Amino acid sequence: MYKEKYPSKLLEDAVDAINSLPGVGRKSALRLALHLLRQPQENVHHFTASIDKLRDHVRYCRTCRMISDEDVCSICSDNSRDKGTICVVEDVRDVMSIEATGQYHGVYHVLGGIISPINGIGPSDITVNDLVNRLRDAEEGTEVIFALSGDVEGETTAFYIYRQISGLGVKVTSLARGLGFGDDIEYADSLTLGRSIANRQPFRP
Amino acid sequence: MYKEKYPSKLLEDAVDAINSLPGVGRKSALRLALHLLRQPQENVHHFTASIDKLRDHVRYCRTCRMISDEDVCSICSDNSRDKGTICVVEDVRDVMSIEATGQYHGVYHVLGGIISPINGIGPSDITVNDLVNRLRDAEEGTEVIFALSGDVEGETTAFYIYRQISGLGVKVTSLARGLGFGDDIEYADSLTLGRSIANRQPFRP
Repeated sequence: MYKEKYPSKLLEDAVDAINSLPGVGRKSALRLALHLLRQPQENVHHFTASIDKLRDHVRYCRTCRMISDEDVCSICSDNSRDKGTICVVEDVRDVMSIEATGQYHGVYHVLGGIISPINGIGPSDITVNDLVNRLRDAEEGTEVIFALSGDVEGETTAFYIYRQISGLGVKVTSLARGLGFGDDIEYADSLTLGRSIANRQPFRP
Repeated sequence: MYKEKYPSKLLEDAVDAINSLPGVGRKSALRLALHLLRQPQENVHHFTASIDKLRDHVRYCRTCRMISDEDVCSICSDNSRDKGTICVVEDVRDVMSIEATGQYHGVYHVLGGIISPINGIGPSDITVNDLVNRLRDAEEGTEVIFALSGDVEGETTAFYIYRQISGLGVKVTSLARGLGFGDDIEYADSLTLGRSIANRQPFRP
């Protein structure tokens, strides 16, 4: 890779660090470094301290492995939530998206990643074992909902987990996939449209 | 602005901090915070330390105000550079771009910003006074080249500086503007094309 000549080693080190973030190129990294240089020193210290604090003091919910400031997260400790329905997601962003719908009243299990041999992430890098242990004590009629991405990695992960938990007597479901609400048929991709036909549902007027 | 519900205050603080960077939205900030959480602790500390170090120990060249690890930057201390030609730029990125051309052998003056009333940046926030003081001692025949952006702020800044230095007996020039080399006339914007006609140059075959 072509590397620019920086007038200062301090600047170059900071650009290298910012450039290591995913999706941030070297030009953007330099722009961000110069932005931080123009900020008051205490603002920059606050910026870096809040990142260090997150990394140093992060905790995960004992039950569902979601990032939490407490030993048990606010969802798992909420008695109005249905503990017999466990939605399996990749990370906390998925929890936030599902919570934002206001349509889900069960609890979660956060894998903290997705099985991806290309990225060197295997089953032991995600919280599958915690899920298996959690389901061993599960009550009769517990349902596990896979809410994983629809790509190869998501499907591989779902299949792996399914094999681990299929002997535990839980019901396993997966998010409905099909045309989005309001989607035009003529603009749908043919894979989605084909599966929507195959998985057609009873008409409920 | 709609603010998401975060499962952890630590996470929310880090997202707020990353979101304060220009061009980084809340979704990207959350993605970056979760990326940093997955990195080894020492990598995150290295990341934040290199930013703190830049902000805490940054130095500027005594002569040209460019970011530098020394009291005088490598360009100003290079005896092969023509000290009688001073290129005035907004920030260090412009120096790097011009240096990358390999076509410039003079020195620089880095303003560290551009006059912009909308952003609350006035003449005292940039290094105009340093430039004026530098030019007071200038030798006969010194040339100042304005290499500022072609927008209103760039032109305002150039005009302001011109008024400050016009009594000092230096030659003042500005970067050539016109069609880019290789540009098609039919695709040129009409402002650029119009100015290219007005500023036409002798044909040198």
